[in-house]
Amino acid sequence: MATVDTSLEGETSGAAGELAAAHSAEHPLKLYGGWFCPFVQRAWIVLAEKNIPHQYVEINPYKKAPEFLALNPRGLVPTLAVPVSVGGEGKKDLKPLYESTVICEYLDEAFADTGRFGPRLLPEEDAYDRARCRLCIDHIGSRIVPAFYRFIQHTPDKAYSIDEVRAEFLGHLKTFANELGSGGPWFLGERFSLVDVMLAPWAKRLFLVDHYKSGGVGIPAEGEGGDDEAVWARWRQWFEAIAARKSVKETWSNDDQYIGAYKRYAEDTTQSEVAKATRQGKSLP
Amino acid sequence: MATVDTSLEGETSGAAGELAAAHSAEHPLKLYGGWFCPFVQRAWIVLAEKNIPHQYVEINPYKKAPEFLALNPRGLVPTLAVPVSVGGEGKKDLKPLYESTVICEYLDEAFADTGRFGPRLLPEEDAYDRARCRLCIDHIGSRIVPAFYRFIQHTPDKAYSIDEVRAEFLGHLKTFANELGSGGPWFLGERFSLVDVMLAPWAKRLFLVDHYKSGGVGIPAEGEGGDDEAVWARWRQWFEAIAARKSVKETWSNDDQYIGAYKRYAEDTTQSEVAKATRQGKSLP
Repeated sequence: MATVDTSLEGETSGAAGELAAAHSAEHPLKLYGGWFCPFVQRAWIVLAEKNIPHQYVEINPYKKAPEFLALNPRGLVPTLAVPVSVGGEGKKDLKPLYESTVICEYLDEAFADTGRFGPRLLPEEDAYDRARCRLCIDHIGSRIVPAFYRFIQHTPDKAYSIDEVRAEFLGHLKTFANELGSGGPWFLGERFSLVDVMLAPWAKRLFLVDHYKSGGVGIPAEGEGGDDEAVWARWRQWFEAIAARKSVKETWSNDDQYIGAYKRYAEDTTQSEVAKATRQGKSLP
Repeated sequence: MATVDTSLEGETSGAAGELAAAHSAEHPLKLYGGWFCPFVQRAWIVLAEKNIPHQYVEINPYKKAPEFLALNPRGLVPTLAVPVSVGGEGKKDLKPLYESTVICEYLDEAFADTGRFGPRLLPEEDAYDRARCRLCIDHIGSRIVPAFYRFIQHTPDKAYSIDEVRAEFLGHLKTFANELGSGGPWFLGERFSLVDVMLAPWAKRLFLVDHYKSGGVGIPAEGEGGDDEAVWARWRQWFEAIAARKSVKETWSNDDQYIGAYKRYAEDTTQSEVAKATRQGKSLP
């Protein structure tokens, strides 16, 4: 979904560095990623959740791997290289998939053996439950994520105030929190699902808004939520569970590295595709 | 996805009128629709393709049915009322679904008995094929559909020329046509799928651009496609198959009624949610 910001340097570090190193050996299923990209992190979390054998390939924006460009000439990350049978005789070609939501749903469906890969991330028993998940994933992708970029890219010269964009962002988060189930921290209550995956990378990046924007994200502290106390308490329960989730921690580099990388977002000078679309008031690519 | 334009009058007519009348009897599965709405037509085509027992409820924007507003206070169409089991003892409640893509995929999954409802509309055998379908559905929803509205709502006072928006629209259609399979008219070749459903309503509405916009859609006539002759020939094959598809014809009212309804789009004065978002340069709701 996002192209790599060509001004970006660095590689995975911390826990993500370890995970990348453990998956650096040649494997036909390859995730081409960029350590800082939240859309990549979605796909990476699914690979980690389901313990799917794969190769992680960090895309250096200064030196894009030729086999990556051959697979996806637009150079978008995440790109997943998928071994697909062609002709007969067990011959397989590598085919590309992109769009983080498509990649995540593909991985959940292609590695569906629950004995080996754990519970399905979209509940397979009930079509209505799946549809509810997809509605919430749509809410995340079409409302929360775009508002996150308007928020972190807000500068004083914008036509709208930071208070307006903060209120919009918090409104979308509250809608999400109101949809969260009972009986456990996740969207489906006890059961972790793709809905939780889809928002996790931006939940992890909220501290960047606190770091860079006057007034911060603005989620009320415990006991200060007024009429919304219950819904923000539910949000905190979800947020804490996400921050503690193994797959989320494993795909996260050191905090400082994100602070450095998002400085240009906060100044609204980055040239990433997502940032440019946000600046121009267009849909995200 | 779209709210009904409150200036709109009328009901289904022609073939769609007959289909609506044949599905006017009380049934727990209800599609709340508006005859002119292409997002509604997507869901309606799936119901017709799979011959799913249902009730069609035309939403009169001047007099929204109370049970519809109770189900979906935002009043969006399409809304699907789904009977969902609650508690034990076979008790069912009606729950709402919205977003045309979510509704369509739900219907395909919930009515999956191929003996009774025909072939699945997303190929169930192969996760990579499904992912390819979802990528193309994403292309339709995020590129072709928004460009359609920028095109039909173009007026001479816009910051961009009609030639620019035409080139953008045709470029997105060509990308679609280049993805079409072989061995048959459809995206998957011989097999009709959700990809075909997703674009059908706007394909059927292309004649409105020809009717209202100087220079029309601009698809080259046969033999006039130059270097793109093959891709436009493939487009025409798909387009003719869609126009002849039973489910598409059955869900279509009389042409004149659309010409009347889209006049306000062509003048860029309609207040539908889709039109307003297009006018403001925002993502479609």
